[in-house]
Amino acid sequence: MGKWAIAVHGGAGVDPNLPVQRQEAAKQLLTRCLNLGISGLRSNCPAIDVVELVVRELETDPLFNSGRGSALTENGTVEMEASIMDGPKRRCGAVSGLTTVKNPISLARLVMEKSPHSYLAFSGAEEFARQQGVELVDNEYFITEENLGMLKLAKEANSILFDYRIPNGGFETCSAGAAATDSPLQMNGLPISLYAPETVGCVVVDQEGRCAAATSTGGLMNKRTGRIGDSPLIGAGTYASNLCGVSCTGEGEAIIRATLARDVAAVMEYKGLCLQEAVDFVIKERLDEGQAGLIAVSKNGEVACGFNANGMFRGCATEDGFMEVGIWP
Amino acid sequence: MGKWAIAVHGGAGVDPNLPVQRQEAAKQLLTRCLNLGISGLRSNCPAIDVVELVVRELETDPLFNSGRGSALTENGTVEMEASIMDGPKRRCGAVSGLTTVKNPISLARLVMEKSPHSYLAFSGAEEFARQQGVELVDNEYFITEENLGMLKLAKEANSILFDYRIPNGGFETCSAGAAATDSPLQMNGLPISLYAPETVGCVVVDQEGRCAAATSTGGLMNKRTGRIGDSPLIGAGTYASNLCGVSCTGEGEAIIRATLARDVAAVMEYKGLCLQEAVDFVIKERLDEGQAGLIAVSKNGEVACGFNANGMFRGCATEDGFMEVGIWP
Repeated sequence: MGKWAIAVHGGAGVDPNLPVQRQEAAKQLLTRCLNLGISGLRSNCPAIDVVELVVRELETDPLFNSGRGSALTENGTVEMEASIMDGPKRRCGAVSGLTTVKNPISLARLVMEKSPHSYLAFSGAEEFARQQGVELVDNEYFITEENLGMLKLAKEANSILFDYRIPNGGFETCSAGAAATDSPLQMNGLPISLYAPETVGCVVVDQEGRCAAATSTGGLMNKRTGRIGDSPLIGAGTYASNLCGVSCTGEGEAIIRATLARDVAAVMEYKGLCLQEAVDFVIKERLDEGQAGLIAVSKNGEVACGFNANGMFRGCATEDGFMEVGIWP
Repeated sequence: MGKWAIAVHGGAGVDPNLPVQRQEAAKQLLTRCLNLGISGLRSNCPAIDVVELVVRELETDPLFNSGRGSALTENGTVEMEASIMDGPKRRCGAVSGLTTVKNPISLARLVMEKSPHSYLAFSGAEEFARQQGVELVDNEYFITEENLGMLKLAKEANSILFDYRIPNGGFETCSAGAAATDSPLQMNGLPISLYAPETVGCVVVDQEGRCAAATSTGGLMNKRTGRIGDSPLIGAGTYASNLCGVSCTGEGEAIIRATLARDVAAVMEYKGLCLQEAVDFVIKERLDEGQAGLIAVSKNGEVACGFNANGMFRGCATEDGFMEVGIWP
């Protein structure tokens, strides 16, 4: 028997002025999710079940940017996406453009298990959801007061593109973030990232050495309708193999270019790096100017995280009794 | 100055009984596309322009499965997808679920150049197309008599899932193809793959050593509405870096699991394999039971292709005067 390990995240890139109360709420939610996963692992649940269970919990709580609490499109609607991958046979499922599915990660799991395809999107994904009988809710269910306020601020900034932490100067680059952490933009007296909605994810290795990964998001605040980010893309936001499981968060376009999740596994497989070395390598070498973070577990029961943003909501635990929940470096 | 090289494909997996006349038509189209690309390269066009130019030509001709001639969804409509990647800065653009855009690859290019995102899909992608002023046509423009016939055969096979070459036994696996090439299914006296629509792609390295890749497809015949395959996914169907450019074709779900295009570059980068070794490695080691093929160029002006299907429509040429167009191994 190997040793289990688990990590969860609630997104990379955190307002340095985030109120302590909100920091504590985030850490409590991450702790609750870790404990939920640990209970599953102690009951010998397979890794794939545990990552789904934990991400469902994160989707159901409005604090982070997935399921309820998802970021809003330019039209004020929610378009959610998610993916899940089971390491042993690299089976995977992904969904994009969901508007009524309460738990996108579970629909991604059903795409993997019950559809002939790996990835369904928009109305076709919604139709599949109805056929599968998953719980559906009105789009309004997902929309929080905080996110309506943040969308308003984004729109008042007059077509400036938001990601989770910064206003962006234009279309030429998606990576003007470095300065923003030094002087977080204030609009209407509020730091724009006060409610900064963040992608969530979970990676698990179970006692059988099976790795799995799951990621779920509402995407960027004020995004175009139809925008697909890294979270549903196998190899970008999510990846699992017989070696490891990885879930990423951050600037989607940079993560896609970097095939970030796959590259953690690739440098382990092809360069022989250990898990933490692999995580450090991809954060340093693959992101170019982009800001992102990731969590990872290996088949040997190791856990690692890495980010080049100013902070990342994350927690991890191992069978040896190690447990940590944090936000800052 | 380096040496240019170019490769094009019209899909992997070919009916062994494909009439000679149709084989010749395919080879003529591939030759025409190669010559178009060669002319561009001799005029010092950048690689990214050449791959777009060549794939536009393939989309405009109804012979293969992209643009006009795209495979049909279960609803008898066309939902096209494409992606493009420019090696030097790994910039990329992708589109899915297009129904009226005459040349999906050019919209993918515009997503890369003119949008803050890397990937737009369905109605949001169509809206972006209208804003960008690209040529739009009715969905009927894309639908050919041959594909209507093939969809009818697929539906008569009563919910059997088609891919480009085989009937599939059910939802549990997408890889029951080996036997099909031995005894191609006959329905109504026709081999179902007679008109087998195939994904297209092009990879180019120019004289400056810049690599680029582009892939475009209508996806699977009789696919679910909303299904996304490997072609628009960076790292799966398409990838380019400072080392190489890769375009894949075949069983999308297997290519996604394998992150096939990225893995060609990854084993070059991380294992030190040369281009042909890298292609052979991923075809042999990464596809599990899946059937697929790919074309690739390296920054040094090398060209390679590989496939484990029974055939692949492909052509390649190098500055040294080498030129080859073929279908069978």
